[in-house]
Amino acid sequence: MSQFYLGVIGVGGVGTAFLQQLSRLPDAPKLILLARSSQTLLAPTPTYLPGIAADWKTASANPDLTKSGALSPEEIASYLSSAPGRAILVDNTSDPALAASYPVFLRAGISIVTPNKKGFSSDLSLFRNIFASAIKGNAHVYHESTVGAGLPVISTLLDLVSTGDEVTRIEGVFSGTLSFLFNTFAPVGGSGAGRKWSEVVAEAKELGYTEPDPRDDLNGMDVARKLTILARLVGLEVQSPDAFPVESLIPKELEGLDSSAEGAKAFMDRLGEFDAQMTEIKESAEKEGKVVRYVGSIDVASKEVRVGLQKFDKDSAIAGLKGSDNIISFYTKRYGSNPLIIQGAGAGGDVTAMGVTADLLKVMHRLR
Amino acid sequence: MSQFYLGVIGVGGVGTAFLQQLSRLPDAPKLILLARSSQTLLAPTPTYLPGIAADWKTASANPDLTKSGALSPEEIASYLSSAPGRAILVDNTSDPALAASYPVFLRAGISIVTPNKKGFSSDLSLFRNIFASAIKGNAHVYHESTVGAGLPVISTLLDLVSTGDEVTRIEGVFSGTLSFLFNTFAPVGGSGAGRKWSEVVAEAKELGYTEPDPRDDLNGMDVARKLTILARLVGLEVQSPDAFPVESLIPKELEGLDSSAEGAKAFMDRLGEFDAQMTEIKESAEKEGKVVRYVGSIDVASKEVRVGLQKFDKDSAIAGLKGSDNIISFYTKRYGSNPLIIQGAGAGGDVTAMGVTADLLKVMHRLR
Repeated sequence: MSQFYLGVIGVGGVGTAFLQQLSRLPDAPKLILLARSSQTLLAPTPTYLPGIAADWKTASANPDLTKSGALSPEEIASYLSSAPGRAILVDNTSDPALAASYPVFLRAGISIVTPNKKGFSSDLSLFRNIFASAIKGNAHVYHESTVGAGLPVISTLLDLVSTGDEVTRIEGVFSGTLSFLFNTFAPVGGSGAGRKWSEVVAEAKELGYTEPDPRDDLNGMDVARKLTILARLVGLEVQSPDAFPVESLIPKELEGLDSSAEGAKAFMDRLGEFDAQMTEIKESAEKEGKVVRYVGSIDVASKEVRVGLQKFDKDSAIAGLKGSDNIISFYTKRYGSNPLIIQGAGAGGDVTAMGVTADLLKVMHRLR
Repeated sequence: MSQFYLGVIGVGGVGTAFLQQLSRLPDAPKLILLARSSQTLLAPTPTYLPGIAADWKTASANPDLTKSGALSPEEIASYLSSAPGRAILVDNTSDPALAASYPVFLRAGISIVTPNKKGFSSDLSLFRNIFASAIKGNAHVYHESTVGAGLPVISTLLDLVSTGDEVTRIEGVFSGTLSFLFNTFAPVGGSGAGRKWSEVVAEAKELGYTEPDPRDDLNGMDVARKLTILARLVGLEVQSPDAFPVESLIPKELEGLDSSAEGAKAFMDRLGEFDAQMTEIKESAEKEGKVVRYVGSIDVASKEVRVGLQKFDKDSAIAGLKGSDNIISFYTKRYGSNPLIIQGAGAGGDVTAMGVTADLLKVMHRLR
């Protein structure tokens, strides 16, 4: 059994849940680097001993570890690739700069496992560079949790493609936050009838279902990044997540507010002024016996990717979603008129970390 | 890139679809053995050249191949393990005798990929012997298509378990045939109101949705075998597929008919005599505003596995199934009250073969 050496960056919600899962694995790889924003813990070279405890508090109190400020990706890659066995980097951040350095790691033979969407959904050239570098370095890149958290979305799509099925269309609800907002604002049963949009957003923010700044959910860019990833995996050359129509739920009049915490507060304070717009959209759907949902879709033949509001029959699977669930439908030649559907929680530390941990196990299986 | 050597047994519906998919793989393994019931084609030793064309007709017309009658599992294992690289056996039969020999292959280092349920759902001792032999032989066993055809059911369950999630309950519709029968006999919209059960069964048989002998679907054993596999993968010690309650849809009065083609004909001829029983079950559900469906469930805490008829709310996901779709819900600690759901076609040559082909790629990735 080979020994694997692990570097982990990020100890937020997903990072912490991942470290817990890691600590319970029967054949866990050896954690030799653990980093958060401005601090890095390293197992001292050349022995790479002792290994690091899988929680930040215990680890940072260990006097036998080397402590440092933030290291550059090159420094981290150099440290990991000197380890006496195959190394794997787990990036539990959403840092675009770290994602831009994946090729450095991969060319050095360090595999990457990550829920960070940035590397796969920014410039197409970076996406290509990542997978070309993996081949060059004989390393692997797994990123299941970039779409639908731990739901088997990426792996299923890759299986369809690699076995020669023809994917014709992908559609679904890809944001747990927007799922919750619309399931609450426009429920099939109609029980949310009296609710105002701004109240539902405020409630979701209080429950921790939105990003700290809800505009980061409402602008649709998170969904656009996920669609970009899926579209590229079926072979569409999507240049960037703003290369196709994305409907923002931020009222035009509030687009000028700056991105600071004050801007976020002003946004929440003023959102109620525009409730009539969303009520109108909801009621127009109701008149047709439908409900409105925020969805993403990829039509492969026409190469059309779009993200935005759409009306759905009340007895459709998308209309019937509960809580903050995601649903993703794959229409393919083999599956015919009834799509292959994956549904369930698409956000949350534990389920996102599960996707990361499962990917880590797969990488270790492939390197063994 | 290592060269892999492949033996394929079975050229029925799934086998033929698999061979088609195999022939289109970019880095296909080398087919050196192709067998159907009483005939075997082999690439001549010691060169293992020429490779075999991936369809029976072309291959059997090739004068350069060695031809033989049926070989014993031991003879096949010996031939495959002498190949100058890692060998993989794809069993596209439903043969219990071949399945009972998997340990022979695995201990010889030959990996197994199969949609054949028999090895994993017969005696618990065989199930255990298979996985122990795989470890001993440093070989792999993949069997995604034993449950839900190409749907990612087994892989998802293994990911949940291996990352430390606690699966509490699994339930769903596991038979494409029984899905079609009940979606047609007792549709949510009620449009099938006037249909008689025996007519629906006859129609399904004509459409090729049932086994040649529909009793093989109606006795519930196919579903029981799938539940046995899933239950064992979450750690329940299910001794055999008849170790738990399985509701048969074969009327008691017809259980005595023998298993021959004549018996099957007599069964179909007489099934209509018992239509009133099924109509009563359907109407009793309707009185509660529900529909009846044939489902399987595993309650992990109480170790209860059961297969049979159950009533479902008309707005439930199970009631809303279409065509011959399967649906499988995983309730787990991490996923909470809303389960992780997989839905789609759970039968058919192409989608079953897709699961086999995807498994083959995964085995090759692990052996590389």
